[in-house]
Amino acid sequence: MSNKIEIQYCTKCRWLLRAAWIAQELLTTFEQEISELTLRPGTGGVFNIFANGKLVWSRKEAGRFPEITELKQLVRNQIAPTKDLGHADKKHK
Amino acid sequence: MSNKIEIQYCTKCRWLLRAAWIAQELLTTFEQEISELTLRPGTGGVFNIFANGKLVWSRKEAGRFPEITELKQLVRNQIAPTKDLGHADKKHK
Repeated sequence: MSNKIEIQYCTKCRWLLRAAWIAQELLTTFEQEISELTLRPGTGGVFNIFANGKLVWSRKEAGRFPEITELKQLVRNQIAPTKDLGHADKKHK
Repeated sequence: MSNKIEIQYCTKCRWLLRAAWIAQELLTTFEQEISELTLRPGTGGVFNIFANGKLVWSRKEAGRFPEITELKQLVRNQIAPTKDLGHADKKHK
């Protein structure tokens, strides 16, 4: 279990709360799989999420924030491809 | 501004919520000073807080959790010694 998550968020946009909420959701769902999660304040509308250095969500590219179930599937695909997310998997298949 | 904070918390003890709360308090108070904050799940009752690699709080050593104002002063002393914490400074002088 040595998977690293990083969440970069824009402080000027006041996005700390949603970054911290997503952090808690990921650290709960992937309690066994995530060894560390880093919150990195930034500016300029940044909201990026990395799993083991790979960009799994960019607000600028997607033009929106991720729905939490969608994000958990993207993170799962990177750090624990065989992990079943239960009901969260059915919704977005 | 390149100060790193790390919060190690025990997952078995269900301390993610207080770790994430403290993270948000520190990232708000020290918005200009903290460049990254890492949450690191652990076990065995661990609840340690580091500022630039220096242990500023250990639940095992102190036998309790820090009061948030007390913790902010300890972190300030490490990462921004001249920063005035306003009302938070008066209480614990």
